[in-house]
Amino acid sequence: MQNEEYLRLKGLMEEHVLYFLPEVDRKSYTLYEAMAYSLNAGGKMLRPVLLLAACDFCGGDEKLALPYACAIEYIHTYSLIHDDLPAMDNDDLRRGIPTNHKVFGEAVAILAGDGLLTSAFEAMNKDMLLYLDNMEKLKRRVRAVYEISKGAGCRGMIAGQIADIEAENKECTKEILDYIHLNKTAALIKAAIRAGAHLGGADKETLDNLDEYAENIGLAFQIMDDVLDLSGDEELLGKKTGSDKSKMKATYPCRYGLPESIDKIKELTDNAKRAIEPYYDNAEFFVKLADELADRVR
Amino acid sequence: MQNEEYLRLKGLMEEHVLYFLPEVDRKSYTLYEAMAYSLNAGGKMLRPVLLLAACDFCGGDEKLALPYACAIEYIHTYSLIHDDLPAMDNDDLRRGIPTNHKVFGEAVAILAGDGLLTSAFEAMNKDMLLYLDNMEKLKRRVRAVYEISKGAGCRGMIAGQIADIEAENKECTKEILDYIHLNKTAALIKAAIRAGAHLGGADKETLDNLDEYAENIGLAFQIMDDVLDLSGDEELLGKKTGSDKSKMKATYPCRYGLPESIDKIKELTDNAKRAIEPYYDNAEFFVKLADELADRVR
Repeated sequence: MQNEEYLRLKGLMEEHVLYFLPEVDRKSYTLYEAMAYSLNAGGKMLRPVLLLAACDFCGGDEKLALPYACAIEYIHTYSLIHDDLPAMDNDDLRRGIPTNHKVFGEAVAILAGDGLLTSAFEAMNKDMLLYLDNMEKLKRRVRAVYEISKGAGCRGMIAGQIADIEAENKECTKEILDYIHLNKTAALIKAAIRAGAHLGGADKETLDNLDEYAENIGLAFQIMDDVLDLSGDEELLGKKTGSDKSKMKATYPCRYGLPESIDKIKELTDNAKRAIEPYYDNAEFFVKLADELADRVR
Repeated sequence: MQNEEYLRLKGLMEEHVLYFLPEVDRKSYTLYEAMAYSLNAGGKMLRPVLLLAACDFCGGDEKLALPYACAIEYIHTYSLIHDDLPAMDNDDLRRGIPTNHKVFGEAVAILAGDGLLTSAFEAMNKDMLLYLDNMEKLKRRVRAVYEISKGAGCRGMIAGQIADIEAENKECTKEILDYIHLNKTAALIKAAIRAGAHLGGADKETLDNLDEYAENIGLAFQIMDDVLDLSGDEELLGKKTGSDKSKMKATYPCRYGLPESIDKIKELTDNAKRAIEPYYDNAEFFVKLADELADRVR
């Protein structure tokens, strides 16, 4: 993503991403190192950028949304660490560097994942303590945390991951494939935008429109990921390609082929842009982002 | 634990422990099964019972504290599932039945742990949504969730686990041993009591005294666990004994021997009871519990 506003928000995140981790003791420093290693691995920061942008868009103060943006990056990062484990996808490379368990060992990688997930909620709840005398601001925060917990949980991301594992090496129906995409990826992207919108004080209609936008870019994002796994450049991607095919993963390009997948991404991107049409004067960032996501090479 | 009040609260927990898990889809039912398997495995329910009892003791309504009590049991249970994994303690048996990964496989066990941890926060945050118009009750809940997130996190339970792993097969100082006990076990026990006290509306002095009680029984509990691992009855315990010794784990009995460990448990139990002396008329449950914990055989 090359648009200026994305790069600005990404920069803000890179500056702050370690800031909301709890201060750890010297005796558990390995834990901190392992968490920081994956947080600093140069990810896109898509989910936190979306949270901050949605907060801005709805009239909130992006700086005050940082604990929540960092929390969602902690959750995304924990999910990658656990996903890369030998018992899961068994990947050696992520974002061009060795995966967490390759550097720190499996036991530490499992705990680093657990630590990031718990730190996400610790950071958000610690922030809430600052608003015990401001009912309106506290309410927005409670709603934001709930969105994030739901999107990350057993009716969201984790549901998608379990369905993904169960679908390996099997003939997969369209219904299951949609379920996996909707949950594994779109759920947390939706949660990011919804949480940001709550923090910014969105009204119901704006929340619904942003939700529609988020679901569509979320699905397009996952299909693009799978397209890149099949046909992308390993060096640009920073990870091995072709692994979905060898594991017979349930993906859109594996099932429908590349041309149909590209068409689908286009359709979803159009749907996303249509959802925010009412705000076109003000939603330049979201329009640009949808196009860039559909056009990415990494 | 055989005292009537303990059994009553444990019964309440057993009735409700699945109730606050998010409703899952048929497609992610394996995830639910794996989480329910470990929640139903017949644990002591010590942490949630302590949370409910502390809430009662401080004048709160135990029924309204159930989402938080269940959440802390979800967190405890996830930590056991991950702890039993081959990359961690590699245990086949827990509470007399096969460990989670032995039944569901490693990938599902990792996700079931992640699911339980996330569900804990989802359940608590969902409950908070019910109190958006009651500032006083909402405040208590925000404080309770923060205690739990801190106790479970990188300055609490997970810090203890990483130090525990790093201390294996090494000569261990007293300082490290205390650090492991304080964090691996006492931190979540403290969090349970502190969260319950917040929910019940405790004043600062009562919170401090209960905190002192919790830390002492928490440390005694872990030493007793290690004593039982060295000298307990496998059938009663429902797991293999002697594993700490074979892994050269940093434990009190491995370092100081059994007699000194038993003395230490007695000393900590006395400290715990002394901490709640001001409330003796009203604290019968906590006094009995401290004695029972020091006297347990499983």
